[in-house]
Amino acid sequence: MSASNESLTSGRKHSEIARSPMATGPESEAPSPSDVRATDRWLLKRVSSFLGDPPVEFAVRGGARVRAASTPVARVTFASRATLVSTLADPWVRFGDAYSDGSLSVDGDLVELLEVVYRASARAEPSWLRRATDLAHRPRVNTLSGSRDNIHHHYDIGNDFYSLWLGSTMAYTCAYYPTPTAALDEAQTAKMHHVCRKVRLKPGESVVEAGCGWGTLALHMARHYGVRVRAFNISHEQVAYARERAAREGLAGQVEYVEDDYRNISGHYDAFISVGMLEHVGVKNYPTLGRVARRCLGSNGRGLIHSIGRNHPARLQPWIEKRIFPGAYAPSLGEMAQIFEPWDLSVLDVENLRLHYAQTLRHWLGLYEAASERVRAMFDEKFVRMWRLYLAGSIAAFSTGTLQLFQVVFATADNNDVPWTRAHLYTP
Amino acid sequence: MSASNESLTSGRKHSEIARSPMATGPESEAPSPSDVRATDRWLLKRVSSFLGDPPVEFAVRGGARVRAASTPVARVTFASRATLVSTLADPWVRFGDAYSDGSLSVDGDLVELLEVVYRASARAEPSWLRRATDLAHRPRVNTLSGSRDNIHHHYDIGNDFYSLWLGSTMAYTCAYYPTPTAALDEAQTAKMHHVCRKVRLKPGESVVEAGCGWGTLALHMARHYGVRVRAFNISHEQVAYARERAAREGLAGQVEYVEDDYRNISGHYDAFISVGMLEHVGVKNYPTLGRVARRCLGSNGRGLIHSIGRNHPARLQPWIEKRIFPGAYAPSLGEMAQIFEPWDLSVLDVENLRLHYAQTLRHWLGLYEAASERVRAMFDEKFVRMWRLYLAGSIAAFSTGTLQLFQVVFATADNNDVPWTRAHLYTP
Repeated sequence: MSASNESLTSGRKHSEIARSPMATGPESEAPSPSDVRATDRWLLKRVSSFLGDPPVEFAVRGGARVRAASTPVARVTFASRATLVSTLADPWVRFGDAYSDGSLSVDGDLVELLEVVYRASARAEPSWLRRATDLAHRPRVNTLSGSRDNIHHHYDIGNDFYSLWLGSTMAYTCAYYPTPTAALDEAQTAKMHHVCRKVRLKPGESVVEAGCGWGTLALHMARHYGVRVRAFNISHEQVAYARERAAREGLAGQVEYVEDDYRNISGHYDAFISVGMLEHVGVKNYPTLGRVARRCLGSNGRGLIHSIGRNHPARLQPWIEKRIFPGAYAPSLGEMAQIFEPWDLSVLDVENLRLHYAQTLRHWLGLYEAASERVRAMFDEKFVRMWRLYLAGSIAAFSTGTLQLFQVVFATADNNDVPWTRAHLYTP
Repeated sequence: MSASNESLTSGRKHSEIARSPMATGPESEAPSPSDVRATDRWLLKRVSSFLGDPPVEFAVRGGARVRAASTPVARVTFASRATLVSTLADPWVRFGDAYSDGSLSVDGDLVELLEVVYRASARAEPSWLRRATDLAHRPRVNTLSGSRDNIHHHYDIGNDFYSLWLGSTMAYTCAYYPTPTAALDEAQTAKMHHVCRKVRLKPGESVVEAGCGWGTLALHMARHYGVRVRAFNISHEQVAYARERAAREGLAGQVEYVEDDYRNISGHYDAFISVGMLEHVGVKNYPTLGRVARRCLGSNGRGLIHSIGRNHPARLQPWIEKRIFPGAYAPSLGEMAQIFEPWDLSVLDVENLRLHYAQTLRHWLGLYEAASERVRAMFDEKFVRMWRLYLAGSIAAFSTGTLQLFQVVFATADNNDVPWTRAHLYTP
């Protein structure tokens, strides 16, 4: 992560490569056992081509280098031919693993690298290959016990760790930046107000929250909107943290944290809110989630679901799904419709905040890098690199439009007590 | 349409009916050939029950009457048992036809009647019956020539007729009421600004409009936003009207009206806009519509589709589909996703304006009733009643949440030049 872009484009070797006859047919590039460099170049070209020939230089440490015609924004160096070959066998997963264990290094800006890779590969990757990758990596299921395992894997690795880089709100979901220059905490607070105003919470009302993280939104609703909240979460660590916080802030009488699955929500409420849980529900369970929401709400009920999404149905990047978020999935709007349509729930408003998530993640990554020594002390270097790649890759995914962020407001079908326009969201 | 609600609940006959043992099993209510009234009552009860027993009194002219327990909001009178029997055979279509030809009359407020019927039947109608009705009434197809026939049926019946009740804008789509008390023309103008601001039109840009009605929005965009517009429509009457209007208003150099199908749109544009055409496209053709939009737009492209919709996939009310809008269909958001998802188009914003459409239709119905003598002179009494039922039924459909109105803003996937928030829509 040290070399600037300039250094990548001015070196002697790059010029040599640029002059070499690399644009000819595959025959002339066939590997020759007597020429290690030629073989490596051929393999590196396969990597570049697989990724849609992004403006990136690919290299083997101390050996061959290739780059597509454009000025490269970064250099990816494989420690050995073995790393290179294994990456070619399963590029998306192996790239992440090799970056994490240090057998692959990046010179240049990691986010910028991932952005150009996302852009180029979106244009290039044949759908059969994506399907083959999907088949090779089966998703983890979200049964009641499966969900517990999946959630434990990510959210229970330590509240201290998350508190290093989530900002003071401990909100681990997309923030809402009233202006692009807003600070992280300010934007997280604005997001919570945005959500509460979208469902027009009124004092004395009751809210059920499905998936409450460290409990921030529930406390915010109780404190600023005078509502009672029951907040569900299956992460033991998060619930413990949230309960302690509610007690410390004197809100334990208004906010009840329940360590249980959203499928077990009972009771009746004025509003159903779920921010950042849908990614862990699984499309198969969307009608169940909708049934739970419908069952909770009376005829004046309304709700909000906030989730990472996609422009079209597609699995998450396989390395993310395997190493970071087992069982997670980001739905398209068409898939999200399966939550609402079976229960005649009426979608009132959808807002796509993907550029806000890119900005949120930039702030998180900044804090994360500033705390990387402490992360290394808590875990190890591999963990530091793995989570850096996850955060940087997520920035790239949102900034390139690979991922979306949908906030969907809904109401029961016959609820006419809904906002006449959305102007109230924008008039303080 | 004369008697007040009070008169419906105070008559002697109603009290008698209320006291009669009508809540017992079907055996005791079987028709007796010797008792015409008993048979009619049995048939009327079938009608009431089919509709979910709304608070409506059902009667045969000069004969039997029944009503469900609640205070009726209106009385529906069948002119004869023949009308009653034929209505039972095909209730949704025959109700409309009988109302139109006068063999069924309504005392009380027509809109209120239809609202209680929509509400009760939504709770009561078994899905097998809706499917049977759907099978009995096959939709008209939207091939290139089929679409021309379908559009001609509705939109080419006379610009003079429409000008009687659409207000001065001649906009035949849902208006946007900044406040519920806004006037019709003001709300139609606000809608056009809302649409233009949602896609952020800038002077010098080019816009393609798919389905332009009488050309109002195209002229508005050219006049107020300084854009060039190519506007497509297959209604010959509407295009002729629009061209004349553009020439009269000195905008013919900026706005070109093309009498052709959206499938034949060519060229590149900064924005793709379609307000109130999707209802005539047919779900099967949604990917085609999306392909056209994608093909039109460059990497900074954005678009807006405004359409009547549903909370879940369902055919239109069969009488409306048969008599008023052949080939028309109001999609769910899940179905609309088929426009965007195959082409990686990114949905940025969805706004549901169903209560605005109920208000628009109330204004239209008011103007229509005020001009009913002139409509009768243009057509006949049957036509007057038919269109009254269509407008009143549409108010009821939107006010009860049977129909929705979705405005969907979208952009090409990699377009980051999109509004940071939606605040600009609400700050003049």
